[in-house]
Amino acid sequence: MTYRFEIVKRDPSSGARLGRLYTAHGEVNTPVFMPVATQGAVKSLAPETVYDLGTELILANTYHLYLRPGHEIIEKLGGLHRFMNWSSPILTDSGGFQVYSLGTLRKINDDGVIFKSHIDGSKHFISPELAIEIQEALGSDIMMCLDECTSYPANFKDAEKSLALTLNWARRSKTAKKNREQALFGIIQGGMYPDLRLRAVEELSQNIGFDGYALGGLSVGEPKEDMKNITSLTTALLPDDKPRYLMGVGMPEDIVTCVDYGIDMFDCVIPTRCARHGLLFTNHEKVVIRHARYRDDDSPLDGTCDCYTCRNYSRAYLRHLYIAKEILAMILNTIHNVRYFMHLMESIRTAIEDGKYREFKNSFLNKTDAAISR
Amino acid sequence: MTYRFEIVKRDPSSGARLGRLYTAHGEVNTPVFMPVATQGAVKSLAPETVYDLGTELILANTYHLYLRPGHEIIEKLGGLHRFMNWSSPILTDSGGFQVYSLGTLRKINDDGVIFKSHIDGSKHFISPELAIEIQEALGSDIMMCLDECTSYPANFKDAEKSLALTLNWARRSKTAKKNREQALFGIIQGGMYPDLRLRAVEELSQNIGFDGYALGGLSVGEPKEDMKNITSLTTALLPDDKPRYLMGVGMPEDIVTCVDYGIDMFDCVIPTRCARHGLLFTNHEKVVIRHARYRDDDSPLDGTCDCYTCRNYSRAYLRHLYIAKEILAMILNTIHNVRYFMHLMESIRTAIEDGKYREFKNSFLNKTDAAISR
Repeated sequence: MTYRFEIVKRDPSSGARLGRLYTAHGEVNTPVFMPVATQGAVKSLAPETVYDLGTELILANTYHLYLRPGHEIIEKLGGLHRFMNWSSPILTDSGGFQVYSLGTLRKINDDGVIFKSHIDGSKHFISPELAIEIQEALGSDIMMCLDECTSYPANFKDAEKSLALTLNWARRSKTAKKNREQALFGIIQGGMYPDLRLRAVEELSQNIGFDGYALGGLSVGEPKEDMKNITSLTTALLPDDKPRYLMGVGMPEDIVTCVDYGIDMFDCVIPTRCARHGLLFTNHEKVVIRHARYRDDDSPLDGTCDCYTCRNYSRAYLRHLYIAKEILAMILNTIHNVRYFMHLMESIRTAIEDGKYREFKNSFLNKTDAAISR
Repeated sequence: MTYRFEIVKRDPSSGARLGRLYTAHGEVNTPVFMPVATQGAVKSLAPETVYDLGTELILANTYHLYLRPGHEIIEKLGGLHRFMNWSSPILTDSGGFQVYSLGTLRKINDDGVIFKSHIDGSKHFISPELAIEIQEALGSDIMMCLDECTSYPANFKDAEKSLALTLNWARRSKTAKKNREQALFGIIQGGMYPDLRLRAVEELSQNIGFDGYALGGLSVGEPKEDMKNITSLTTALLPDDKPRYLMGVGMPEDIVTCVDYGIDMFDCVIPTRCARHGLLFTNHEKVVIRHARYRDDDSPLDGTCDCYTCRNYSRAYLRHLYIAKEILAMILNTIHNVRYFMHLMESIRTAIEDGKYREFKNSFLNKTDAAISR
């Protein structure tokens, strides 16, 4: 099997690790942030642009691609990499979180999930085995086990019952896996209960064994402090030599914080979705580009940013495009936000390389606090 | 003044001419097709992409830019070229056609047009002098006189009265023009009446004198044969040494036909708008990309096309993106359609260069007829 993870360097001042993932489609430097290509395209960008912005790994959604265009079609056309013209590594989620998000449109039993498509209301059934089959057809480099995302809030009994299902499905997923070129990650659930998180870690890592471990069921409505506490204590329990992936996180300050806990991988729709809504991340502040104050502002969005948008356009032009609902607004905004996230990850890796991650983190978080209180 | 037009070659088999426009922002080879950048952006494309597809001249809309963001802002920010990051030539229309399209929201008198903004209903007044002032503030390379687009159908008396206004405004536009770096084109109106078209040509070209002449009031609902007849006979009356611009046309077969009459310049939203609606031009047929028959079609949109879209994506992927409403669908489709039009213009110029334009035209139109009757 091609897949391998190595830790390149440990930061002496914190729990941060510099690592490298080896996959059939190339290497990925960690800590890594994955832009999201929900339907087989990072929204508003051509894949070459995504790559040129510094992206080494993207996330695609099994649920969406299963429904449309269908994994058999993608397999017939040579797999997801070829279909979407992306030759670097791809991680696919299992569809668990999307099905969870359907709310009353889904029914879960021991076998799997029955749900209605958000597109046409058609009925579907996904089992742990089918989730693997779909991901093998897509040909992603890293697959995720089907899990049940424990809702928030959940009492101990419900969280425990839900976890039991996730652990059972994890075992079945591992058994179902055929393709040896693809890695498979287990997902740690357990709600806000440290005991359950510990149980999940033990079962997944000691009794079953996966190529990496993801933290699920976070960023689902719980207070930010709970997210941080659960991430911190769960990460400390995980095997040191496998990558750790915090699913669905998130905001730059949360990424910076959780790297300190030892998280290696992140994904979130924030950079792309915020871009489409005109919310832009910069090294100084968050910019709401529609504001009248940018009406005749000739300066770039971020004078310290090296992206195409900042090198070529004024805030006034970006505001004009946004107000005028031009598609180019979404393109230029997305280029900038994705570059901001990729540059952040580069800075994070450099700080670890230099053995000064804690210093970097504190300075970054102070700056963010200052920007918020301004 | 930088502006100059030269005829490089005349096709011996037809009325087609190969020419070159010299402007303050570079040269333009004619016959030329202008993609439309209504609000200061060619929809769905970054300007570098537009340029790389072979575009030498774009059209921007005075009406839209006057309303939003306002020509004073664009002037303050260094003019339209800098504002939109496009360093090649730009032609601006006068706003006459957009105001005409407002229908009951406008009132025309001898002084100019009173109209209500399509954005917020605010009241505005544009005179021939203001239309020049706006275009000088934008800093386009070629400006157009404010005209009244004669509606179709119009009886002789109404068309005559409308023409008188357009001719009066043309004279005032020429007087108002200050900036010597910018060219100014007159617009020939006169409805479907050859006598009026002749009167317009005489007044504009002999009594006033412009840097080029545009045919207006066509493609406004009249039968295609009328459009062709009026274009053919009006073009024959125009001074030979100035560029001739057929406004708002159009379809590939109409471009090919009208080049034979001696037209040098075209603009139309067809390639960009059709792209956004999934209608794609190819060298063999018009493709409606949403059709189920492309569901698992691994072939490129057009195997003979050299564009980024055709080199990298299958019809199945383009269909998927379109059905899934991905923004990338609009980007990839627009790249292809604009490239199709630019390639068509290259073929047209090559055919004239080779002195075989009539042959090219007949073969192109036969192919189109065959595709339609298939």
